[in-house]
Amino acid sequence: MKSAVSGAMLLAISAVAQAADLPWTFQPLPEVAPAPEDNPITKEKLVLGKQLYFDPRLSITGTHSCNSCHNLSAGGEDGRAQPVGVYGRKGKRGTQTIWNAAFHTAYNWDGSTNTLEEQAQKHILDPNIMGMPDADTVVKRINNIPGYRQQFENIFNREEGKEGVSFNTIAMALSTYERTLTTPNSPFDRYLRGDDNAISAEAKRGVREFLDVRCASCHFWVNLAGPIPGLALKQGEGFYELFPNYPGTDYERRYKLADDLGRVYYSKDKTDTRMWRMPSLRNVAITAPYFHNGTVKTLDEAVRVMAKTQLGKELTEQQVSDIVAFLSSLTGEFPEQTLPRLPETPKHTAVAGHDH
Amino acid sequence: MKSAVSGAMLLAISAVAQAADLPWTFQPLPEVAPAPEDNPITKEKLVLGKQLYFDPRLSITGTHSCNSCHNLSAGGEDGRAQPVGVYGRKGKRGTQTIWNAAFHTAYNWDGSTNTLEEQAQKHILDPNIMGMPDADTVVKRINNIPGYRQQFENIFNREEGKEGVSFNTIAMALSTYERTLTTPNSPFDRYLRGDDNAISAEAKRGVREFLDVRCASCHFWVNLAGPIPGLALKQGEGFYELFPNYPGTDYERRYKLADDLGRVYYSKDKTDTRMWRMPSLRNVAITAPYFHNGTVKTLDEAVRVMAKTQLGKELTEQQVSDIVAFLSSLTGEFPEQTLPRLPETPKHTAVAGHDH
Repeated sequence: MKSAVSGAMLLAISAVAQAADLPWTFQPLPEVAPAPEDNPITKEKLVLGKQLYFDPRLSITGTHSCNSCHNLSAGGEDGRAQPVGVYGRKGKRGTQTIWNAAFHTAYNWDGSTNTLEEQAQKHILDPNIMGMPDADTVVKRINNIPGYRQQFENIFNREEGKEGVSFNTIAMALSTYERTLTTPNSPFDRYLRGDDNAISAEAKRGVREFLDVRCASCHFWVNLAGPIPGLALKQGEGFYELFPNYPGTDYERRYKLADDLGRVYYSKDKTDTRMWRMPSLRNVAITAPYFHNGTVKTLDEAVRVMAKTQLGKELTEQQVSDIVAFLSSLTGEFPEQTLPRLPETPKHTAVAGHDH
Repeated sequence: MKSAVSGAMLLAISAVAQAADLPWTFQPLPEVAPAPEDNPITKEKLVLGKQLYFDPRLSITGTHSCNSCHNLSAGGEDGRAQPVGVYGRKGKRGTQTIWNAAFHTAYNWDGSTNTLEEQAQKHILDPNIMGMPDADTVVKRINNIPGYRQQFENIFNREEGKEGVSFNTIAMALSTYERTLTTPNSPFDRYLRGDDNAISAEAKRGVREFLDVRCASCHFWVNLAGPIPGLALKQGEGFYELFPNYPGTDYERRYKLADDLGRVYYSKDKTDTRMWRMPSLRNVAITAPYFHNGTVKTLDEAVRVMAKTQLGKELTEQQVSDIVAFLSSLTGEFPEQTLPRLPETPKHTAVAGHDH
């Protein structure tokens, strides 16, 4: 188990953030996300990673690419309460957005993977998602495609020995592409940079309410999700919060918020019961439904639920609509993506033997 | 039932095509496909149609877009024997490519739809594909998305009354985009236009074999699939052939080629038993597996099967590899597609009420 940080532990920091000092609490999103030293972003790796991201041959049935659930034409997720993987199987928890995911220090709702690279591998092998039985099968599938094999040999041979296609290099290429999936220049980012007209008066009131009711105790900094790599936490150290924090509310019952015990299933540490890795609020207006189980369908209701279950507060309808206006100003610019051409498996289907 | 034309009925034409007169038998693919008079291609309709093509909200579960099976990053199909639709349900017959589909005069393996427009509607409502229960539900889903509603009202209001979003206009927009999905300038097209070096000596022998063993009796003209709209057939009149034509072969048993009776299920006309609409051979090298049931995994085997079951001939391995070289020269240029941004359902999930 990796060391965990909770919102409470950062209270000293976030108390400062409650002040009028917006540029400390929030930061405009950089256009480029940090990359680890052992996997720098290169042009060739990016081209390869994009092909892999859109390639359904990474799933056992040849039906599901990363983009099937993490839809880059939309909010980087699937708009559903639960993802649908291979064979129509449902995942347990809602798909989280891939946009700006590179700014997290741990992955999945429960922080059960430390890096984008690990996250990609986990989902490829998850029987309810892409359903590959093991790493060897993945490597064999990709190795069977000459256009991939050649690229891997070119990219991962020189500095790193004769690795070529491996489960490791597949994840490295995928993560390289994912690190470029950022949505900078939201109206709120432009506001932070000094354009006073970038957001509405309603949204400006919303920012103030967001700070005053203490949403920003946890939803702060670049990704409105707490620390980013290099700020307070290292990669692999997650930023967690108890949810629901005020137990026993009507909301908790109605939306089944306490049924899933969160991180404890993974860590086996009782103190992780109902602990969840902080989700980002960027693009939150276009990533309904909400929460780990997707039971809340609208953003205004999600705001009410959070105020009550996390902060013990009832918001006025004015407060709710102001905060929703602020949150809507967090929808960024989505860089245009050209659809990659996938390398062929010449004269042969790539999913032969698994076409069931 | 629409009137049908079989390969035999066009024998007089195709006999001419057996001669050295290549430009009559085959024609380079035009860059633009024909559009019906009542649905001309416009820039605005194209933008809208592309969004719809990539939008999984056209499926009941929000998981399947047109592109999920008709994958434009690849050969315009799914590389599987049977498509996988909503809820993990399998379709009965293999997905046919959307690339160059606009050159057909009837759609689906059995010619059960007359136009691209009808084909789109059929697949949206097919319980094993996109699973929408009825046209009203589709219209309601799209109408619920302001970014779509506005585009439909702009595009389909002026000349065509107050139609706005309708099942008809949804299909018109989708088909407009699909008519631009052509793959011109394959090596063979360049050869037809006079570039003698565009294809290999092996492929040139393959062209000759293809004509000599009479594959071109049916696989001729622009799409190597017989008549196109305006040549011999009108839109809605399919070009059909009996398959298997020589019954009782080992191939038939091994690959279960005669189990599905084809067009008769749809037309209820006994003379349509085992009649199939002619598939195109363009990009055939990258659209394995082969035939309506996808039982044949490689192109060389597909060539052997066709020679035996359709023409009663055993090919030499040299003939097979020559014909495969020719068929591989039919892989065209795939125009780069930018991924559309899908209009948002603001602050709300678009599949609410159907998220099961």
